Amino acid sequence: MDKYISQAVIRRMPRYYRYLGELLESGVDRISSGDLSKLMNVTASQIRQDLNNFGGFGQQGYGYNVQYLYDEIGKILGLNQNHNIIIIGAGNLGLAIANYMKFDKLGFKLIALFDVNPELVGQEVRGVPVYHVDELKKICKEKKIDIAALTMPKDNADNIANRVVQLGIKAIWNFAHVDLDVSSEDVVVENVHLSDSLMQLSYNIAKNTK
Amino acid sequence: MDKYISQAVIRRMPRYYRYLGELLESGVDRISSGDLSKLMNVTASQIRQDLNNFGGFGQQGYGYNVQYLYDEIGKILGLNQNHNIIIIGAGNLGLAIANYMKFDKLGFKLIALFDVNPELVGQEVRGVPVYHVDELKKICKEKKIDIAALTMPKDNADNIANRVVQLGIKAIWNFAHVDLDVSSEDVVVENVHLSDSLMQLSYNIAKNTK
Repeated sequence: MDKYISQAVIRRMPRYYRYLGELLESGVDRISSGDLSKLMNVTASQIRQDLNNFGGFGQQGYGYNVQYLYDEIGKILGLNQNHNIIIIGAGNLGLAIANYMKFDKLGFKLIALFDVNPELVGQEVRGVPVYHVDELKKICKEKKIDIAALTMPKDNADNIANRVVQLGIKAIWNFAHVDLDVSSEDVVVENVHLSDSLMQLSYNIAKNTK
Repeated sequence: MDKYISQAVIRRMPRYYRYLGELLESGVDRISSGDLSKLMNVTASQIRQDLNNFGGFGQQGYGYNVQYLYDEIGKILGLNQNHNIIIIGAGNLGLAIANYMKFDKLGFKLIALFDVNPELVGQEVRGVPVYHVDELKKICKEKKIDIAALTMPKDNADNIANRVVQLGIKAIWNFAHVDLDVSSEDVVVENVHLSDSLMQLSYNIAKNTK
């Protein structure tokens, strides 16, 4: 995939994947671009444009084969590979993510949680152990870890992020309330800012009451 | 503010607000668009364009007054108003949000949590009570609730969303794993899909290893 594809298009792909997965679960084999458009509340032309970035998957007058499209978008999203994931910070947010079973189905395998709180260390979440953060190096040597989810407080996030990068982890899913600035170019970071989403909502409330 | 402003611009505003807030905390009064650009890792021209949507706030050769810009963006985002918020679903995710103190600072006041689990009902989180979901109507009569955060499982989300709308709540912050389809036009919904963000990360991992 050498062609440049904008992050805006990529950001829409997971939503397609989600809807197609739900169609499959409901036993739908085939869907017209018109029906998919209504279901997803985007224009049929947007769907065609988005999918054309990847070569298009439709057959004229025939609609989309749901399973095929689901699998192909899965490949685009790298979901044909399994990913080993660790969670650093076993507070409520870390536990919420650890307990979210759907990630398993998407091929994200939770290997370990880490915390500094002695009350949490030694516990298990869905059979997955909580280690002390000092054990990070040891665990990362034993298993190849693809993704580190950072769910600890902001103050320690940059420090932990650097340790994680030094241990060879190439992807950070960051929930700490900072935009992580990882110096290494081959490390990808996805920042999740829940407060940004709440402010967006607040903007729409203000706009709506005008 | 009658001018149409794209959601893409709006989505960037919380990030400006966050950075400006951090500058204020560090005691910075004034910043050039060049320095702000470096700090936020976006071009100075993007910053100017974004802010020009709201009339622009810069003074030539003088930079931005951080406090003024922070306050003005706060107004754009509706943060000059307080918002009463309830959380429906007092599991890990609900508790993570309830414990996130920064929302207080942004003027989001947590009024109550709700759950169906008898072990949770009657407890308190930071002094805020957890009620049974059956009490929703009563609490919404006592206090004007602006925002309902839905952190319960997906299966019940549409049902609860409709109840919430019937009770006059105009904004839903939805973490349940569905795109809520609220029929009422004057209700705003912000869907947070954590799995979409993880898939985005997975895409970038795949791209990076090619």
